[in-house]
Amino acid sequence: MSQVEEYVKSRRKKTLEELKEILRIPSVSTLESHRKEMLRCAQLVARRMKETGLQSRILRTDRHPAVYGERIAGSGSPTVLVYGHYDVQPPDPLGLWRHDPFEPTEEEGLLYARGASDDKGQFFALLKGIEAFLNTREGPRVSVKVIVEGEEEIGSPSLRALIRQERALLSADVVVVADGSQFARDLPAITYGLKGLVFIEATVRGPSKDLHSGAYGGTVANPANVLARMLAACQGPFGRVAIPGFYDDVRSLEAWEREEFAKLPFREEEYREEIGVPKLFGEEGFTTIERKWARPTFDLNGLSSGFSGEGAKTVLPAEARAKISMRLVPDQDPSKIVRLVTDFLRSVAPDTVRVDCLTHHASKPVLLSRDGAHVRAAVRAFARAFGREPVFVREGGSIPVVNAFQEELGLESLLLGIGLPDDDAHAPNEKIRIEDVYRGAVLMGAFLEGLEA
Amino acid sequence: MSQVEEYVKSRRKKTLEELKEILRIPSVSTLESHRKEMLRCAQLVARRMKETGLQSRILRTDRHPAVYGERIAGSGSPTVLVYGHYDVQPPDPLGLWRHDPFEPTEEEGLLYARGASDDKGQFFALLKGIEAFLNTREGPRVSVKVIVEGEEEIGSPSLRALIRQERALLSADVVVVADGSQFARDLPAITYGLKGLVFIEATVRGPSKDLHSGAYGGTVANPANVLARMLAACQGPFGRVAIPGFYDDVRSLEAWEREEFAKLPFREEEYREEIGVPKLFGEEGFTTIERKWARPTFDLNGLSSGFSGEGAKTVLPAEARAKISMRLVPDQDPSKIVRLVTDFLRSVAPDTVRVDCLTHHASKPVLLSRDGAHVRAAVRAFARAFGREPVFVREGGSIPVVNAFQEELGLESLLLGIGLPDDDAHAPNEKIRIEDVYRGAVLMGAFLEGLEA
Repeated sequence: MSQVEEYVKSRRKKTLEELKEILRIPSVSTLESHRKEMLRCAQLVARRMKETGLQSRILRTDRHPAVYGERIAGSGSPTVLVYGHYDVQPPDPLGLWRHDPFEPTEEEGLLYARGASDDKGQFFALLKGIEAFLNTREGPRVSVKVIVEGEEEIGSPSLRALIRQERALLSADVVVVADGSQFARDLPAITYGLKGLVFIEATVRGPSKDLHSGAYGGTVANPANVLARMLAACQGPFGRVAIPGFYDDVRSLEAWEREEFAKLPFREEEYREEIGVPKLFGEEGFTTIERKWARPTFDLNGLSSGFSGEGAKTVLPAEARAKISMRLVPDQDPSKIVRLVTDFLRSVAPDTVRVDCLTHHASKPVLLSRDGAHVRAAVRAFARAFGREPVFVREGGSIPVVNAFQEELGLESLLLGIGLPDDDAHAPNEKIRIEDVYRGAVLMGAFLEGLEA
Repeated sequence: MSQVEEYVKSRRKKTLEELKEILRIPSVSTLESHRKEMLRCAQLVARRMKETGLQSRILRTDRHPAVYGERIAGSGSPTVLVYGHYDVQPPDPLGLWRHDPFEPTEEEGLLYARGASDDKGQFFALLKGIEAFLNTREGPRVSVKVIVEGEEEIGSPSLRALIRQERALLSADVVVVADGSQFARDLPAITYGLKGLVFIEATVRGPSKDLHSGAYGGTVANPANVLARMLAACQGPFGRVAIPGFYDDVRSLEAWEREEFAKLPFREEEYREEIGVPKLFGEEGFTTIERKWARPTFDLNGLSSGFSGEGAKTVLPAEARAKISMRLVPDQDPSKIVRLVTDFLRSVAPDTVRVDCLTHHASKPVLLSRDGAHVRAAVRAFARAFGREPVFVREGGSIPVVNAFQEELGLESLLLGIGLPDDDAHAPNEKIRIEDVYRGAVLMGAFLEGLEA
């Protein structure tokens, strides 16, 4: 057993108690009434960083502060920047929790609390790994920087400005993002692919006000009728997107990816039952995992028009609106897709209505290295902490901070989640496996050791 | 000038004062708090009937009573049943009224009040015509029956049961419906065609709950995506309905109808501006009036699914819902159309979702006689009251009481509206031309005289 592992092992109880102390603070970033708790949590995180051996400070933002800590090694040493967040989702609906969400409770090897997995348990595990690393050697030969923000659950509104402003402070060779999950229990994973996102709101406007469908029907284009046809025109069979040019820049899955994905323990029937649909669905020629991780999508997230109350009302609505999101894969370009989609929607609309397209969001898909020194160090560290090498996976969602570090600092991220897919982040009874907290600490310590070699 | 005309003319002031008294009662049927006012209004109407020379009584229903009056002539005389309603729409939004909606106000030949046109002013005008008829002869040779209900503005929930229960009392040769309008000022009209209506709610259900569109997108059919395609499949170009069999029973417009409609003073450009659309729209080969009155429609009245708030939320919705109404024309059969449409919707839905279709409403289109003794009498009566013969028109909407009298008593209706299209029924500042109240009285008196001949 290495010194790092011994260090972590000998301090298990202390680690758990310290984590509980952080979990007790209801740092719900979305609630204006919790501003004080947010600051209190930031201050506790700063104190923990100090105890770890980092010089720490609070970085103010317009809303909730971030906490920064660092220990700079000799010049020429590699620098690792660790990212996490101390804010949490609201605990609602409270009635479904079996314990107080802010009184961490142990049960059968699990620790229940809001933020246990997302993300207090995870960033704290990595912080403990840094402590183990720093306390088991004289002059460490890796510089360590840590930033823990307080606005992740509200979309990280200050993060980009903060990164830009603190460019020098945050400069590094790689970012370790401590906010994700293993593929399954005891099956650690490195996520190397994230989807991008384009979110558009399309509004079709017709008459200046709602009309009586008897008095006017048949003489004027009904915006809801028109919208349905426009949205249908975007779709091909089996979830294919029918917008010309949409697939032009889609990078094909490589043979090794398809092989690796096929080997993962994924049961379609279990997945179907979990979702509760009569049958799964998707683009022909791809498995469910391939569709989820590596194929772009076109999903309506919202439809609204006219009368939606109970019963009947024969209104010919003045307008109809759709919220549309497209998940993008490498190498699709969000601004090109926005242009393609809005041009297409306008082109299929008749001149009897007006169409407005509003872009709410456009972010790039991400494809990270699957080898290189950092990745290889992470693979070895996983092997030490979890007793097996990680699988390489992608995700169907996006992680905006990964784009922020890439675009603002030119830094690649290493996505080393130690949570589990069924940790119930964002849901009642959120939890983390206590063993995984310790393994996360070993993972981080071993990773830093690996970079010294 | 006939006796009837002289009678009406000599009592103008009294007629107006009596009408105002009825208009002062806020008989808003939809408001539970107005029950007393409803009863007070019914009692006043019963008293006015008595003064007219009818035997009157209140007919109880589960909610608001109807008022019935009659004067039976010798056996073998024709019988006319006049229908109207004393209940009114709520006056909201009150702020937009220039006068108290329940304090009738004269202004430039117009009488402003809630119910002035819909329908107190109209049924009262006809009642005054009956009075003129009865008071200008010894034994009249036409039996007159009048029913004035109190639930029209809430969908006449008791009317069918009442008609069935009072079948003998209400038996007649024809019904005169006093609730409509002239085609334009000084251009009286007889409405001979009404559309039917089928109102369906289609719900597409997919996952058992809303999903994250990143985590699940592309692997499961999105109910909103599916609904858009289903609704598009129902539509052909230019408002044509693409559901097979939909047009099978549509009766073509006759040559004389197209000629008459073309002669009506209808300005497309004015109509387009009133609606506020960039361009009118509709089935090829038909004029706007023909589309409005004589072609079936398929209109989405409501769409709802997923997230409809401000901004973006990447939800893959569990379900999507559409409210769909089809206006039917003779000889389309509502139950056949319900079957065609629901079968079609189910047939175009993939087996990856569940589809429910709920029928909220199904009523038959109506085509009334354009000649026959009653119609000819009405034409002559219009000529006497308005100085010109009426045009024959249809409507894009339906009038449920016409179906009720047809289906329950086998009676045809004569639709003799004396209001104007811009009377603002249901809107603030509702009004009626005072002159048209007097002309309505002459119309009714002359009509009854005509039936004696």
